[in-house]
Amino acid sequence: MKYQSGRHFLQIPGPTNVPDRVLRAIDRQTIDHRGPEFQQLGLDVQKGLKRIFKTEGTVIIYPSSGTGAWEAALVNTLNAGDSVLMYETGHFATLWMTLAKRLGLNPEFIPGNWRTGVDVSVLEERLIADRSHALKAVCVVHNETSSAITSHIALIRKTIDRCKHPALLMVDTVSGLGSIDYRHDEWGVDVSVSGSQKGLMLPPGLSFNAVSQKALDASKKATLPRSYFSWEEMLGPNKNGYFPYTPATNLLYGLREAIHLLEEEGMDNVFQRHIRHGEATRAAVNAWGLEMPCKNETEFSPALTAVVMPEGHSEIAFRKLILERFNMSLGSGLGKFTDKVFRIGHLGDFNDLTLLGALSGVEMGLTLANVPHHKGGVDAAMQSLERVYQKK
Amino acid sequence: MKYQSGRHFLQIPGPTNVPDRVLRAIDRQTIDHRGPEFQQLGLDVQKGLKRIFKTEGTVIIYPSSGTGAWEAALVNTLNAGDSVLMYETGHFATLWMTLAKRLGLNPEFIPGNWRTGVDVSVLEERLIADRSHALKAVCVVHNETSSAITSHIALIRKTIDRCKHPALLMVDTVSGLGSIDYRHDEWGVDVSVSGSQKGLMLPPGLSFNAVSQKALDASKKATLPRSYFSWEEMLGPNKNGYFPYTPATNLLYGLREAIHLLEEEGMDNVFQRHIRHGEATRAAVNAWGLEMPCKNETEFSPALTAVVMPEGHSEIAFRKLILERFNMSLGSGLGKFTDKVFRIGHLGDFNDLTLLGALSGVEMGLTLANVPHHKGGVDAAMQSLERVYQKK
Amino acid sequence: MKYQSGRHFLQIPGPTNVPDRVLRAIDRQTIDHRGPEFQQLGLDVQKGLKRIFKTEGTVIIYPSSGTGAWEAALVNTLNAGDSVLMYETGHFATLWMTLAKRLGLNPEFIPGNWRTGVDVSVLEERLIADRSHALKAVCVVHNETSSAITSHIALIRKTIDRCKHPALLMVDTVSGLGSIDYRHDEWGVDVSVSGSQKGLMLPPGLSFNAVSQKALDASKKATLPRSYFSWEEMLGPNKNGYFPYTPATNLLYGLREAIHLLEEEGMDNVFQRHIRHGEATRAAVNAWGLEMPCKNETEFSPALTAVVMPEGHSEIAFRKLILERFNMSLGSGLGKFTDKVFRIGHLGDFNDLTLLGALSGVEMGLTLANVPHHKGGVDAAMQSLERVYQKK
Amino acid sequence: MKYQSGRHFLQIPGPTNVPDRVLRAIDRQTIDHRGPEFQQLGLDVQKGLKRIFKTEGTVIIYPSSGTGAWEAALVNTLNAGDSVLMYETGHFATLWMTLAKRLGLNPEFIPGNWRTGVDVSVLEERLIADRSHALKAVCVVHNETSSAITSHIALIRKTIDRCKHPALLMVDTVSGLGSIDYRHDEWGVDVSVSGSQKGLMLPPGLSFNAVSQKALDASKKATLPRSYFSWEEMLGPNKNGYFPYTPATNLLYGLREAIHLLEEEGMDNVFQRHIRHGEATRAAVNAWGLEMPCKNETEFSPALTAVVMPEGHSEIAFRKLILERFNMSLGSGLGKFTDKVFRIGHLGDFNDLTLLGALSGVEMGLTLANVPHHKGGVDAAMQSLERVYQKK
Repeated sequence: MKYQSGRHFLQIPGPTNVPDRVLRAIDRQTIDHRGPEFQQLGLDVQKGLKRIFKTEGTVIIYPSSGTGAWEAALVNTLNAGDSVLMYETGHFATLWMTLAKRLGLNPEFIPGNWRTGVDVSVLEERLIADRSHALKAVCVVHNETSSAITSHIALIRKTIDRCKHPALLMVDTVSGLGSIDYRHDEWGVDVSVSGSQKGLMLPPGLSFNAVSQKALDASKKATLPRSYFSWEEMLGPNKNGYFPYTPATNLLYGLREAIHLLEEEGMDNVFQRHIRHGEATRAAVNAWGLEMPCKNETEFSPALTAVVMPEGHSEIAFRKLILERFNMSLGSGLGKFTDKVFRIGHLGDFNDLTLLGALSGVEMGLTLANVPHHKGGVDAAMQSLERVYQKK
Repeated sequence: MKYQSGRHFLQIPGPTNVPDRVLRAIDRQTIDHRGPEFQQLGLDVQKGLKRIFKTEGTVIIYPSSGTGAWEAALVNTLNAGDSVLMYETGHFATLWMTLAKRLGLNPEFIPGNWRTGVDVSVLEERLIADRSHALKAVCVVHNETSSAITSHIALIRKTIDRCKHPALLMVDTVSGLGSIDYRHDEWGVDVSVSGSQKGLMLPPGLSFNAVSQKALDASKKATLPRSYFSWEEMLGPNKNGYFPYTPATNLLYGLREAIHLLEEEGMDNVFQRHIRHGEATRAAVNAWGLEMPCKNETEFSPALTAVVMPEGHSEIAFRKLILERFNMSLGSGLGKFTDKVFRIGHLGDFNDLTLLGALSGVEMGLTLANVPHHKGGVDAAMQSLERVYQKK
Repeated sequence: MKYQSGRHFLQIPGPTNVPDRVLRAIDRQTIDHRGPEFQQLGLDVQKGLKRIFKTEGTVIIYPSSGTGAWEAALVNTLNAGDSVLMYETGHFATLWMTLAKRLGLNPEFIPGNWRTGVDVSVLEERLIADRSHALKAVCVVHNETSSAITSHIALIRKTIDRCKHPALLMVDTVSGLGSIDYRHDEWGVDVSVSGSQKGLMLPPGLSFNAVSQKALDASKKATLPRSYFSWEEMLGPNKNGYFPYTPATNLLYGLREAIHLLEEEGMDNVFQRHIRHGEATRAAVNAWGLEMPCKNETEFSPALTAVVMPEGHSEIAFRKLILERFNMSLGSGLGKFTDKVFRIGHLGDFNDLTLLGALSGVEMGLTLANVPHHKGGVDAAMQSLERVYQKK
Repeated sequence: MKYQSGRHFLQIPGPTNVPDRVLRAIDRQTIDHRGPEFQQLGLDVQKGLKRIFKTEGTVIIYPSSGTGAWEAALVNTLNAGDSVLMYETGHFATLWMTLAKRLGLNPEFIPGNWRTGVDVSVLEERLIADRSHALKAVCVVHNETSSAITSHIALIRKTIDRCKHPALLMVDTVSGLGSIDYRHDEWGVDVSVSGSQKGLMLPPGLSFNAVSQKALDASKKATLPRSYFSWEEMLGPNKNGYFPYTPATNLLYGLREAIHLLEEEGMDNVFQRHIRHGEATRAAVNAWGLEMPCKNETEFSPALTAVVMPEGHSEIAFRKLILERFNMSLGSGLGKFTDKVFRIGHLGDFNDLTLLGALSGVEMGLTLANVPHHKGGVDAAMQSLERVYQKK
């Protein structure tokens, strides 16, 4: 590729921009994964992830993409043919459902229109109806990356509890963790699924399961075949910081540094930053007069914003123009949003000026692509940020 | 950890020393895995790996450790309860067998004493006896890392063919590929399993399946549940250089550079280098008067050397002394070799002087640990190398 | 320092943002500066710099900051007490003059108001008056970084020639080279002075003299004491790519890569990019209703923009607010512009979206600091860029 | 260059092997050299260097090679035509003398045979004879890198004091500092000269002057023209951690990390390590039956070892063979030692096994180049090291 001056703007909703300190931490000789230095590393990242997930329980680290952690959550806790309740919040919920089918489970998919998060009244109705407790798990997506919509996990837990339903609660927070407040223990999640390449500001290649005691108990009886993703295999060596097979050591170096950076900034500051950037981005989108899929004010994602292209305009062509002209990658429309919705990632290692650079690229792109819109999006975003700072 | 001056000598048989150029290639911002630049990367590494495996067929790249590629080989081609023939060449053969069991297969394990590679006469006998062709696959380890013994894959293929047995041939060449000549197509292998962190000189985190047409055909009928490791899922997007889920992009940067370096050196030169270092190392071990597990001259591994500790001496204590005193990691004894055998890795990014530094550390360590031995190992290794160069 | 998420915006007019590929090139083991690999490096960077300076003559590379190359230009060509004509275009012209005094020269300083470049009519008058040719050199600054004003070097040469004056022409293009078209040979410059940390996109630590034959001839008779900066010492070993003393090898790795990147982008594209960013920045400043020091339309620098703070407002306080709030460094007011003028660097490794991020930071900063201004600067800059692309 | 597997053995006596952590520290965006973060960096490296030089006085850091710091020592303290006493310990002493001449000084050079350090009886005689105190400075080399011979600086100071001679004592410890114990204050040195690329384990590009109060006082009256190297210019901004011109920021990042590493290892451990490696290397050279220039047991350098090639053998050809065959750079013969003496650097970031690898390369090289020698050098070195550890 011919050199393009300046930094690429990687504004897809993950992989996200990796801090230089994380890349530099990864850029180091691999060490003996059975030696004392590795042991310290292994213990450090386990402890660090517990703080990030806000759990006193167990966090398991896989050398895999987030998809692997989806699979891990299911194969460790369930049996062939088990029914699981899933909720169509968007493309990733759909993919997880498909994966469950492939593994021989029987997912029941509550249909959704990709415009809202999980509707707990629908969930409640379904759980109440399940008198025989045939549903072994409720699987939901915390931050649905395809539609930029969040679901209220604590509320879902309360709903399950209210129904006195014993189903495990499994949550995909791949694109939520590290960007949006997440509380595995407090919210009563049984298996949280996440990955390295979003809020954790790492390259892809690591995925995680945070696991409750209830889930661990379930895993002892679960009979789906498993080996690579087996919790049991992991738990023994993990106790001493080791792994049952060669871990992705260099990415673990990066993980340790990334956790360090997040905590240096302060997790609450990190969450506030994402909220601030979400608000500023929506101010811009509203000023442009463009639509967003999300219908509920309380469900807008702080991590990314989805934007509906006006009828007759292709988001694929639009993103191509922006990539070539402004050296910025935006997120594509996925599944039924293909060529209809583009997405602006504002998660991970990111700041105000980068956001405004990104929004400027979108605004100029709208002009150059002759997409009908009002000017003033960047202005609105600046005013949104100014208000935040003027309050202080 | 307190700084220890100079480079650590990572002489375990993998992960191996990663060339600085590979680490620097990894140390780069992650890119959009759905964009045009990634596409080129994806196609490049697929093509490169085909040259490395010497196959015109298909190579599949997983974001996982080598263990994942073991699992992938089995779940894509077999059905629950299938019998597979495995051969106990050492610890890794044993682990693969255990994994097969966990996946619901029915492995038949030909016992071995960890002193030889696969004995094809035993194999032949067993295959002839299997008139019903109940055995669906023969699974062997090319370079058994626990005992430093190689098996002759071409011969195994010929044996299967001579028996007219339809079993698939699956080969673990995790620690062979990139160090020892390997020919997926010519040798008639159906599934080759490998990983990034050995001869390919990368950090751990990528694994590979090279797949024959026969194996692909088998995968279409195979019914073991699979999703993350499903070839089918991979093959579609792979055609255009993409992946069905977020790939470990930064490790792929490294893979492209590592293939580049291997081919810059020349694969035949790479193999000759490993052979040269194997010979020099064995010259040292023989001079010390120590024993090696391998009983057949033609089965010594060029990639690493295993050494039996004299009775009454602990290899664990010995390696600890060497780690602390000389900042060198040696390979531990695995499985039944625990505390009895240590291993010297001489694979990956490595050269003559590093080998002699490593052997010096072993020789001084033997003295400091009061292990009975003769002096002159390093001298013997130097003479072995000198002879190579004097011939030229 | 506590981690601040996202990239720092380094918008001082040098050191500039260093491309990751340049940093990675520097991040490599140092090699023997007397060996064959270094020789190739030495020859490569010499040749590359000749293309950058547009000279067939000699380019000398010092391990020093740009200040060293100022000193080198003078000590190699002049004698104690020599008169040299200098022109007060701003702070850096003043510093060079002071340096000349310290070296025992007799600089004559044509006063300026920091609002224009070199006025060639004033120059002409002075040269005509110098009938005895007492003035041995004319020293001017190509891109005066303190005031963001360029001077027309070709015109200065023509003026000297028209006066038939034998003075050497020495030009400081520290912040011009690599950002603004520069033609050492065509423009008849005798000594061009530059440094690594501006348009060449390198960390500081290297400086350059491009030298004409006339200057080389002068150096043979020049008697100012010199050793470290002596051209003669350099020229011998340089012929073969070597240096008379240990060179800054790792920065030379970076220099080779930086030249590569500039030429990959295309030097004319690089110059157009800086012109485009200069125009967009001035559009913003004009929209804000703020003043710029530069009085002549043809003398605005494409590499940076200086902005006068409204009366009663401190640029120091303003930059501090922006640094702390938006993680952006702007250039300070220098010399008599201290606390009165701030500067926005838009040179080096940079692109449209980064510029707009930077300008957004300035615009929000103006609001937060209660500096009187009109809104709409970023909008004006976007429109300026859109016009460029709509023309194409 | 075609890739050569494994690490290059950089066994020249500087530049030395740079620790990965130092390279990674350098591999970071440049920051504003006038901002608060730089200030901290500037103060940190000044304080750190004071500890390294063992001085409470002033340390000045130049963006230049060590040669620049030679020049700085002289131009800041002396006047045109001043007599300075220098001592021919080898090539670098000779270069410094030549540099003094170029700067208009009048060096008096006590001849030496490159086989010993400074003979203080000769020095004493000369100082006593200088009744008029015409000699303004005594300039000596602490660790003469061309001959691998050290001089006893404390003894030289005592000699000067015994003679009640007011001459300044200036010491080149470019290749001594950070490898061999050095005590600027305790030894009464007035100007210590050093550089980054030896014991400090950095790439070349920084040089240092440690300065006594007496030298500072002298600088106030000294009239040699100077600007770039002027202490006075430096001292003002240095007080607050800043520099009068753009410093080599990225190398300063490296310097901070290098000081950190040295102190993590412990300076006394660092010195012991170099002593241990000097002894082991000489054991090898003696076993080979080769000669070393150094005639006095107490003057052998712990930082490098010089070896005389047997009559009729070219060190240039020998080093070329070793570079091509074993990927190791050895130091060349300099000045009158050209093609007669080669040098083995064992300073900087280095350890036992790397030393033995390096010595193995020399021993095999002697064989392959048909240089008459006895075998057993590496054996002798191993035994030398074993003895050190067995004592403990």
